[in-house]
Amino acid sequence: MAKDSLFAKSMITTQDWLVEDLERVLKLAFEMKEDRYSDKYTSLLKFRTFLMFFYNPSVRTRQSFEAAATELGGHAQFLEPKSMRLKTKKSAGETIEDAAQVMSRYGAGLGIRILEDKVPEYGAGDALLREYAKYSTIPILNMADDKFHPMQGLADVMGLRMHLGQNLKGKKLLQVWGHGALSRSWCSIQESLLINSRMGMDVSLCYPEGYDLDPEVIEMVKENCKKTGAKFEITHEQQEGYKDADVVYSRNWMSPNAYSPDGEYLKAKEVEKALKYPEWICDSEKMKLTNEALFIHPMPVDRGHEVSDEVASSKKSIMIDVAENRLHVQKAVMALTMSENL
Amino acid sequence: MAKDSLFAKSMITTQDWLVEDLERVLKLAFEMKEDRYSDKYTSLLKFRTFLMFFYNPSVRTRQSFEAAATELGGHAQFLEPKSMRLKTKKSAGETIEDAAQVMSRYGAGLGIRILEDKVPEYGAGDALLREYAKYSTIPILNMADDKFHPMQGLADVMGLRMHLGQNLKGKKLLQVWGHGALSRSWCSIQESLLINSRMGMDVSLCYPEGYDLDPEVIEMVKENCKKTGAKFEITHEQQEGYKDADVVYSRNWMSPNAYSPDGEYLKAKEVEKALKYPEWICDSEKMKLTNEALFIHPMPVDRGHEVSDEVASSKKSIMIDVAENRLHVQKAVMALTMSENL
Amino acid sequence: MAKDSLFAKSMITTQDWLVEDLERVLKLAFEMKEDRYSDKYTSLLKFRTFLMFFYNPSVRTRQSFEAAATELGGHAQFLEPKSMRLKTKKSAGETIEDAAQVMSRYGAGLGIRILEDKVPEYGAGDALLREYAKYSTIPILNMADDKFHPMQGLADVMGLRMHLGQNLKGKKLLQVWGHGALSRSWCSIQESLLINSRMGMDVSLCYPEGYDLDPEVIEMVKENCKKTGAKFEITHEQQEGYKDADVVYSRNWMSPNAYSPDGEYLKAKEVEKALKYPEWICDSEKMKLTNEALFIHPMPVDRGHEVSDEVASSKKSIMIDVAENRLHVQKAVMALTMSENL
Repeated sequence: MAKDSLFAKSMITTQDWLVEDLERVLKLAFEMKEDRYSDKYTSLLKFRTFLMFFYNPSVRTRQSFEAAATELGGHAQFLEPKSMRLKTKKSAGETIEDAAQVMSRYGAGLGIRILEDKVPEYGAGDALLREYAKYSTIPILNMADDKFHPMQGLADVMGLRMHLGQNLKGKKLLQVWGHGALSRSWCSIQESLLINSRMGMDVSLCYPEGYDLDPEVIEMVKENCKKTGAKFEITHEQQEGYKDADVVYSRNWMSPNAYSPDGEYLKAKEVEKALKYPEWICDSEKMKLTNEALFIHPMPVDRGHEVSDEVASSKKSIMIDVAENRLHVQKAVMALTMSENL
Repeated sequence: MAKDSLFAKSMITTQDWLVEDLERVLKLAFEMKEDRYSDKYTSLLKFRTFLMFFYNPSVRTRQSFEAAATELGGHAQFLEPKSMRLKTKKSAGETIEDAAQVMSRYGAGLGIRILEDKVPEYGAGDALLREYAKYSTIPILNMADDKFHPMQGLADVMGLRMHLGQNLKGKKLLQVWGHGALSRSWCSIQESLLINSRMGMDVSLCYPEGYDLDPEVIEMVKENCKKTGAKFEITHEQQEGYKDADVVYSRNWMSPNAYSPDGEYLKAKEVEKALKYPEWICDSEKMKLTNEALFIHPMPVDRGHEVSDEVASSKKSIMIDVAENRLHVQKAVMALTMSENL
Repeated sequence: MAKDSLFAKSMITTQDWLVEDLERVLKLAFEMKEDRYSDKYTSLLKFRTFLMFFYNPSVRTRQSFEAAATELGGHAQFLEPKSMRLKTKKSAGETIEDAAQVMSRYGAGLGIRILEDKVPEYGAGDALLREYAKYSTIPILNMADDKFHPMQGLADVMGLRMHLGQNLKGKKLLQVWGHGALSRSWCSIQESLLINSRMGMDVSLCYPEGYDLDPEVIEMVKENCKKTGAKFEITHEQQEGYKDADVVYSRNWMSPNAYSPDGEYLKAKEVEKALKYPEWICDSEKMKLTNEALFIHPMPVDRGHEVSDEVASSKKSIMIDVAENRLHVQKAVMALTMSENL
C-alpha cells in the first residue's frame, strides 16, 4: 500500500511525460485489460472521488472515464460548467486559484475537457488546464483540450501494439485528413503525432493545402523523430501518404483559420470548406496502396466522409478496440497518479 | 458464480419474453424486496457500469434504475442525448452500429428511454431500441419507449400479487382513460394489457371514442387472452368498465391523432382535447361499482383529472407500492441479464 | 449495527436541532476528518442512495455532498428540477405528497437546494423543504434554501474550532456586508448568526442601511444570545464592527427589496445597488482593528469586492479549511440521520 512516484502528477499531454513513464502506463493498461475486475484493481480508488469538468460534452470520454473510476472502486462526478461560477473576463465568480484549492480537498483527481469552441483563441483551453495544475495538489487529467488529447494517444498506441506487436519502430503511420461536416479539433491528431513519433514510428502527415496544424507541435514532432531516428514527412499527395503505410488514421480537422479575428470559432464556415474535398476519403482503393494497413480512428467516425463504410467495418479496422483501450489506459493513469493503495 | 441463461437478453417488452422467464424475474424481485441489502445481491454487478440514455427526462425511472444499479454494487451513468453525437437524417454523427459496439465494451447493460415527442412517428422509438439490440452484445433494457414499458408492467403485476395473491387468473382489471393535461404515452397502458392478459386477468379497456390504442398491440392482447382463456373487452361505457372490477388503472393517454402529418407530436392540441371529458375521472362513486377494487397507477398521477384525491389517497390505492416495485423488478432483470456472478 | 436516535431526522436549519445534537455532529465530523477513509465510516451508507435536488446549481455543495455519499459507501443521485414533473400553480404535475412518498421508498435521504430566484417570495423555498419533510419518511437535508444553510453553519463552527479551540464562548464574530456583483442569498449569513450565537460567540452584525436581514431570524438570534449570555449588536459603522473581532466573515447579501411586488427576484437591480459601496470591503487596513482575526467565507468568494486578495490569501484566511469541513459535517449528519449500520 503506497503511492507511486507518479502520484499527483498531471497529464496534460504525453509529451510532458518521460517515455519510460508512458511505458509503465501502457504495461499496467495491458494487465488491467487482461484481468479487468480483479481485486488487485477494484480497490485502488476505493471511496475516492474523481471530478470531471465537461466544458464540452462527450460520448466516449465521459463513459470511459466514469466507468474507469467505477472499476477502480471510486466514483466520478459529472460536472458541467453551467454549474460552476468561475470568474471570467465578463462576469464575477470564483478564481481558478480558489476553485482548485477547494477541489483538492474533496477529490483525488480532476479531469477537464475544453475544446476550441469554448475558448477565445487556440491554446487558451490548454492554458486553463495548466492554471488548474498550478494551484491544485491533485493531478489534472486532460480529457481533451484544444491542443492535446493524451488518453487518446495512449489508447492508439495500445491498439497498435495489440495488432502489430510491442515494437512499433519503423512501422509507417499515415495521418490523413478526411473531408466532412464535423470540423474537428486538432487534439487527437496532434497527440498521435507526438506519441507515435516518440514510439519510433515513421509518420506521414497528409492533407490538402490550407490545413496546417500547430507549427509548434510540428516542431516537437520533428525533435521527437530526431531522437528516435524515425522519419517524418508532410505531403499533400494522398498516393504518397498511403504508399506502404502500416496504419491509416483518417480524420477531419479544422483549418488554422477556424477562429475569427475576435476569437469566435466559426464552425459553419469550416464545415462548408471541408465538404469541398470529396476525394479526401479513406476507401478500399487507397487502402490497396498500403502494406495491408490497419485502420484506426478516435471515433465518433464520420462514415462516408472520413472513411468508407467498407473500410470502417472491415477486419482491418481496429477502432472499436482502440475505443475500448481508452478505458484501460485511463484506469492505468488514474491508478498511478491518484491511488494511495497501489 | 455464473451467468444466467437470460444473460445478455434484451428486454424491450415483456411480450418478447416467455412467461416462465417473467415468473423468474418476479420471484427474484420478491426475494430482493424481502432482503434488500443482502450480500447475496449487493455484489451481483460489482464495479460494473449500467449506461442509461434518457432521450426523455424521467423521475421515477431515473431514480429507480440508478438506485437499482447501486444496490447491486454497480454504477449507473446518467446520459442525456445532448451529450451524444449520433447520426440523424439531419446531421452528421455516429451510427448506432458504432455506438452500440463501443458501449458494449464499456458497460454491462444499456437502458434507453425515448417517447413519442422525440421521434418522427409512432414506433420509431421502439425501432431505435431494437436497432441498438441488433448491434450490441450487452442487453438493451427499455426504460419506456413510445410502444412499451416492460418494467412498469412487471411492477404492476408484482403490486397486484402483493395485494391479491400470486394467482391473478380470473380477476378483472379495468384500464380506463382519464382526462387531463399531460397527454401521455401509450407505453404503460399497452404493457399492462399485454402482461396482465398473459397472467390470465380479465381485461376491460374503457375509453371515449377516438382514443384507440395501437391496433397491433390490441391484436396481441387478444391472442394472449386466447391462450390463457382470459376475457378481453373494449367499451366506451364507464359503468360497464367499473362493474365488478378487482383493479382499476385510470390513466390519461393521447389520441392516435397526436402526430401531425410531418411527424411532429402536437402536445398542446392533445391536451386541449383531453380536457373536454371531465366525467372521465376515477372517483369514489365509480369505485362503488367495483368489487372493492384496488387502485393502481404508474405515477406521476394527475390528481383531480385522472383520479380524485380521495381515491388516490385511499387505503385501496397501491400506487406507492407499485412505484417501489419498479426498483425490485429492475434489480431482478438487471441481475439476470447483466450479472456474471449470479 | 443500529440506528441513531437522530435517524430519519431532517435538518432544515441548525436552529431546529438541540445544541447537544449539533455537538454530536461536530464531534463525529472531527473524527471523520482524522480518519477519512476508515472502514468505520465507509460502510455506513453501503449501497444506499442519497437523492439530491438542485433547483439551483452549485459548485461546492454538489461536490461535497456527492463525495460525502461516496465516502460513506453510498451513492448520491444528482437530480435537477427540469427532470422533475412536479405540480406548480402554473402546470399539471406530481404533488409533493406523492413525490415524497415514492422517494422514501428509493432513497435513504433527500437533499434539496432552492434559493430566492426560484421561488415567488422569501420563505417559499424553506416552506417547500418543510412540505417534503412532512410527507417523507426519510430525512430532508437542506443544501441551502432562501432562509437557512445548516451545513455551512456547521462547517463554519468546525473551522473556528480548528483554529480557536473548542470553546468559542466570548470570542467576537463580525458578520460584515461586502459590496459586489453577486447579490447573494441570506441563508449562509443567517445560519451563521443562529449557530454561532448558540455557541456563545459575541456577534456583531454590520451593514449599510437598507440591508436588513429577516427580522424573525434576528429575533431568534437575540433569544439565542439571552440563553447563552452572548452579546449581539447591529451596527452600520465598520470601525465599530471590526474592533477587537476574533473572526471576520465578510460577505455580500441582497437587500430586502430584492423581490418585485409580483414575486420576481430582480438580481440586476440588486447588483447595481450593491456596487455603490466600494468602501465595504474587508482589507488589511480594517483587519488591523481586529484581535488578529481569522477571515472566513462560505465561498465562492468575490475577490476585490467582498475581500481584498491580500486578506483572502493571507495566513489568517481559513476559508479553504471551512470549505473542506462541508464534507466532514455533511458526512456526520448523513451518518447520524441516514445510516442503519452506525
